Amino acid sequence: MAHRLAAWTKDTKRSALQDMLELTSGPEYISFGLGLPNAECFPTEQLAVSAHEALLRQSDPLQYAPPTEQLKRQIQLLMRQRGVECGISQIFLTAGAQQGINLLARLLLDPGRAVLAEEVTYTGFLQVLEPFQPRVLTVPTDPVSGIDVDQVEQVLQSEERPACMYVIPSGHNPLSYTLSKEKRQKLAQLAAVYEVPIIEDDPYGFLAYEDSEIPAIKSFQSDWVFYVGSFSKILAPGLRLGWIIANDAIIEKLSIVKEATDINTATLTQQIAANFLQKDEFTEHLHHLRQEYRLRRNVMIDHLARQLGEVGAWTVPSSGLFMWVRFPESINTMELFKESIATEKVTFFPGSVFAVKPSQMASSSVRLNFSFNNPDKIEDGIARLSRLVKRHL
Amino acid sequence: MAHRLAAWTKDTKRSALQDMLELTSGPEYISFGLGLPNAECFPTEQLAVSAHEALLRQSDPLQYAPPTEQLKRQIQLLMRQRGVECGISQIFLTAGAQQGINLLARLLLDPGRAVLAEEVTYTGFLQVLEPFQPRVLTVPTDPVSGIDVDQVEQVLQSEERPACMYVIPSGHNPLSYTLSKEKRQKLAQLAAVYEVPIIEDDPYGFLAYEDSEIPAIKSFQSDWVFYVGSFSKILAPGLRLGWIIANDAIIEKLSIVKEATDINTATLTQQIAANFLQKDEFTEHLHHLRQEYRLRRNVMIDHLARQLGEVGAWTVPSSGLFMWVRFPESINTMELFKESIATEKVTFFPGSVFAVKPSQMASSSVRLNFSFNNPDKIEDGIARLSRLVKRHL
Repeated sequence: MAHRLAAWTKDTKRSALQDMLELTSGPEYISFGLGLPNAECFPTEQLAVSAHEALLRQSDPLQYAPPTEQLKRQIQLLMRQRGVECGISQIFLTAGAQQGINLLARLLLDPGRAVLAEEVTYTGFLQVLEPFQPRVLTVPTDPVSGIDVDQVEQVLQSEERPACMYVIPSGHNPLSYTLSKEKRQKLAQLAAVYEVPIIEDDPYGFLAYEDSEIPAIKSFQSDWVFYVGSFSKILAPGLRLGWIIANDAIIEKLSIVKEATDINTATLTQQIAANFLQKDEFTEHLHHLRQEYRLRRNVMIDHLARQLGEVGAWTVPSSGLFMWVRFPESINTMELFKESIATEKVTFFPGSVFAVKPSQMASSSVRLNFSFNNPDKIEDGIARLSRLVKRHL
Repeated sequence: MAHRLAAWTKDTKRSALQDMLELTSGPEYISFGLGLPNAECFPTEQLAVSAHEALLRQSDPLQYAPPTEQLKRQIQLLMRQRGVECGISQIFLTAGAQQGINLLARLLLDPGRAVLAEEVTYTGFLQVLEPFQPRVLTVPTDPVSGIDVDQVEQVLQSEERPACMYVIPSGHNPLSYTLSKEKRQKLAQLAAVYEVPIIEDDPYGFLAYEDSEIPAIKSFQSDWVFYVGSFSKILAPGLRLGWIIANDAIIEKLSIVKEATDINTATLTQQIAANFLQKDEFTEHLHHLRQEYRLRRNVMIDHLARQLGEVGAWTVPSSGLFMWVRFPESINTMELFKESIATEKVTFFPGSVFAVKPSQMASSSVRLNFSFNNPDKIEDGIARLSRLVKRHL
């Protein structure tokens, strides 16, 4: 008995790493692996109040319904913090940012077309691409200055026109950089000139730890940038809520793809989020969240500096949930990870996981999440990592 | 400024009918159009209690998490009512049945492959197919005996092997029939012999109004039937929860497609549903729901018989939310619908909407939903429909 499945599924399998991360979820492990928010920072009690309001005081939170206007209005206000002015009709609700990226890809990609991405990028985007088996036109990137915009232009000039460019401008996953305003403006300009839309994946854009937030790429170019937002990192991933900002023609097509995908996003979770967002407490919550994550980031940096200051290199992330730490080339972090499972019991993502094609820079780096653990665990975890690395020098 | 989108999107647009249905949602209209459950039948207060439990007493309802085991156990029990014994590992949670169908299609279909479907079928399945532009091998069907199983065999013998067969065995949408046990057994056998999987779409399987529930096709053939279930019709669509039952190899592939689609289904709504399902109240709720819908079905039949008994033909649905009423061939129900917008203000789906290719039977029929309205509205709506039809005789 063998089912004949779509051709692209033949080579897909659950990554061994994913399995290992599940195996290592016990309390004896310290995980810097997954990109989880800190559960203690969820506004649980306020959301319980919001759920109560939605279920017992509002009409039809349980029925099929069009997207909640009230939530769109809150997103409209939020987007001003990212420098984006948009109408309600340009806001499209999704079941999280991953769905936003997926819907856009299905709208933009024909099988076999090309897409432009960084050499090292978010694996969830690569998973979205799999059914289309596209040519991925890669451009260099690095943890300090981010995507190489001159190379982007070169590729756009010389190669077949890609269906889209994928960019994570703030708190990049996994490289941790935040792109300069100048590079954002240049990317926006390239998108318009070469008529290649940018998918701007911005789940960390509201988690800036320094005073100056850099506006979204979308703020510099409206038509050719499709902005993807998420409530997973600023509210809670268990609600599965996100959004896309695009022009009306794209929104209309998205609504068709979305209906065929899952009819609509859960009305109940939309209303719960909308109820909370329209209270003043949300501003406080976001402020608190930034404080807590900034603290954790600083604790991680302190201990990295003390323990691995002469061995590793990193930049200070001004946004997001991750640090990218590079070790000497002699260290292969996939080997490090496997050894850690049995010895130090600290987990992380080896950089090679994010490399579109083999990359020396990625193979000797790790992505460390700093949001999930509390400071004492972070200290313990970095001590373990340090012992592990030093055995390999 | 024109975006270059995937080729298949060129001809997709929101249906004019969909727009009309939105325009006619005001209180002056009576809608038999959409397949909405009755909002008064939602167990709203119990779900509010379940939400409170989930948020304030259970761990991490707001975090990223694997599918909730507790909910799978409840589904395992439910499936026994459909004659299906399955392990926990064969249960896959989705954001509603539409997502279940969509994920399966993406797993099974290569662009251009064939699928087997009835001449008149659920439009949501056809929407799922659009990106793949498959050849749809149609088989005859009718509102009394349902899909023509002999023709299914003929197609399987003579045509290219389809990627799947799509079947709605209980309370068919839109034709309202419930397939006999013999036909189910035969379909199960054909799937195994010709190695063509069945997508068994069963959102109405728990809404049987007669004593004898006919087991799911899945109960007769495990490997070659992918069962799609839904909580939208028996709990609430605003939760967006459904499931697939398939073998472990398929589940593993589904989990990869699902992760790329939206990471996972909302943990919060999973826990809310699980909390309610494990209480005795759920059994009472389902019993109550069947009573209420049986009553509404009977009211609709009574008034149809009185008002249109000599003009229309229908069968008594033993399951589901719909009646299929056929009028004389001289009546085009799309025209009827357009006229109704301005005159009688009763809305319904013209049968032609569900026809894969032009069909006389479908063009002179309507699909009427009987779950959404209360009995007095049903009476009023059928009176309006009767006046409308009689003007066209």
